[in-house]
Amino acid sequence: MSSGKIAALLVTHLPDVRYLCGFTGSNAALAITQKAALLVTDGRYTAQAAAQVTGAEVRVARGSAAAEACRWLAATRVKHAHYDAEATTVSALHAMQAAVKGGTRHARGFFVALASPLVAEQRMVKDAAEIEAMAAAAALGVRLFEQVLGFLRPGIAESAVAAELEYAARRAGAEAMSFATIVASGPRSALPHGTASAARLPRRGFVTLDFGVILNGYCSDMTRTVHMGRASAREREAYDAVLAAQENAVAAVRAGVAAAEIDEAARSVLRQAGLADSFTHSTGHGVGLEIHESPRIAAGQQTLLSKGMVITIEPGVYLPNQFGLRIEDTLVVERRGARVLTPATKAWIEL
Amino acid sequence: MSSGKIAALLVTHLPDVRYLCGFTGSNAALAITQKAALLVTDGRYTAQAAAQVTGAEVRVARGSAAAEACRWLAATRVKHAHYDAEATTVSALHAMQAAVKGGTRHARGFFVALASPLVAEQRMVKDAAEIEAMAAAAALGVRLFEQVLGFLRPGIAESAVAAELEYAARRAGAEAMSFATIVASGPRSALPHGTASAARLPRRGFVTLDFGVILNGYCSDMTRTVHMGRASAREREAYDAVLAAQENAVAAVRAGVAAAEIDEAARSVLRQAGLADSFTHSTGHGVGLEIHESPRIAAGQQTLLSKGMVITIEPGVYLPNQFGLRIEDTLVVERRGARVLTPATKAWIEL
Repeated sequence: MSSGKIAALLVTHLPDVRYLCGFTGSNAALAITQKAALLVTDGRYTAQAAAQVTGAEVRVARGSAAAEACRWLAATRVKHAHYDAEATTVSALHAMQAAVKGGTRHARGFFVALASPLVAEQRMVKDAAEIEAMAAAAALGVRLFEQVLGFLRPGIAESAVAAELEYAARRAGAEAMSFATIVASGPRSALPHGTASAARLPRRGFVTLDFGVILNGYCSDMTRTVHMGRASAREREAYDAVLAAQENAVAAVRAGVAAAEIDEAARSVLRQAGLADSFTHSTGHGVGLEIHESPRIAAGQQTLLSKGMVITIEPGVYLPNQFGLRIEDTLVVERRGARVLTPATKAWIEL
Repeated sequence: MSSGKIAALLVTHLPDVRYLCGFTGSNAALAITQKAALLVTDGRYTAQAAAQVTGAEVRVARGSAAAEACRWLAATRVKHAHYDAEATTVSALHAMQAAVKGGTRHARGFFVALASPLVAEQRMVKDAAEIEAMAAAAALGVRLFEQVLGFLRPGIAESAVAAELEYAARRAGAEAMSFATIVASGPRSALPHGTASAARLPRRGFVTLDFGVILNGYCSDMTRTVHMGRASAREREAYDAVLAAQENAVAAVRAGVAAAEIDEAARSVLRQAGLADSFTHSTGHGVGLEIHESPRIAAGQQTLLSKGMVITIEPGVYLPNQFGLRIEDTLVVERRGARVLTPATKAWIEL
């Protein structure tokens, strides 16, 4: 905005609102001009907004917060405001446009213009305080993984494993889990997103644990796969291939490298092992106030990694009705490499 | 659709997708014509989609699922499809429009048209199986409330209370909590959305517990407020007023009544008690696969309640920096009244 190319910004995506002014309520719109800023919320959040918001006036309104923010913007005499098309529904856009239609002549001249996700782009690179918060969340994740290992045994329900993990997370101060905890065991390990079910851990088979906590608003994310009982040679080979792929991708991370290259670093190892077709998702994603942020670490993604980005590296292989496994770390991109925030062991574990 | 007014429907809101075809994955688009239906997802969900989806073909695609669904719709030779403007981002709409631009002459003639939230409207009225699922979730909520009462004592952190509640929920089979658990104690009880913090329960003061579980995909929602130690006359009067307001609104619920009338039934009682300005939110909302669904139970809402709608009734009063309280039930609208799904005591509790 200081370059003068953008006269005003209308921010309605809640993590963006939190990022810019500190407000964590569930209903908000933030309008920003070169000279002033206004946070609009509703009556449930009067006290909370007064306590949390920095750098913006607070207004409590009935009806759509975004519409109220638009009316305020129109009254400041800016001609247009940019908004984030990826975080705004079509009907919200209509409400914003309608809000200024009946206004003054000036207000009728005001319009909201499409924009790339400016705040999302800004959020990709974390500052020192954010990295500290993410390191703390990730370190809690590592402790929880080590703790829950002692709880795994055949016959325990996946949901009971999730219960132990989440209870320990809460007791350690986590505000919430960053996504539905995945505990996928036996043939269910072949489901990349197998959230904990009533299925019981097998005597022999993989157990994939993929989970994250939210601490001070920031998400952790890690996956480890362990084996119950003795593994087959095929299971062990698949594990070694995924681990090699994951480590190869981690080693490729540094500022200036394209996201697609990191994906290829993982994928090429699995290709050599004849497992490329079983690696059915992308290699990773940005993480921060949200569990999935930019950049995507995937084929075709030309975004260059920058110092301070926090990303996951999480290749996996999935053989339907047989088994699957995934290994995931979260790391901070540095000038000449990466700092792994989730240093739990990735060595083969047979329980 | 059977009336012939709608040629095709493009559904991208995930709870709507689940409602219509049973798929619970995190990436999906469902296209429906008079003759056929297609569910598009990505490679992470190949096995899961095959197991879950009923009434639709399944296609696994790279790139945007909605765009792929659009291309399929265009190929079926329907001229246009309706989509939900409240659940579709502007950029998703652009991607859908772009997906068919480069296609055949017929595809180029295909367009997506704005529509009211058709599936959301359909979802307002629950069938017998859904009501059974919601009753089970609500009954678990009641048990959890009774259980957690025994855990409350001065000095315990709000987050520890949430941890106990959520652990017990998980052990009882809950898939997740339906929203961030609210444990708001002492002066924090004046925050309508005071999610559990590090604050400790006071020797004297209110504790508001607002929480829900997800069981078989359906959300429960209930709030109770209890008092630690002896209450002041003012606190007790406020409690009695909120309880009277809540019961008056519950008594007003039956098929055929406008949502605004239910809101007024609660608000008028608080007005008489001189507390109308401290009741800063609406009276309730629909609940189901999502924690907030249509209809809104609020001033100005002319939607008529119908048999089978499941709604919350949750008036509260909030005196900033002093205290606050809320009482909430979930209930099924019936022809001549309502069936309360959360029959935990609402009597005054001093611990």
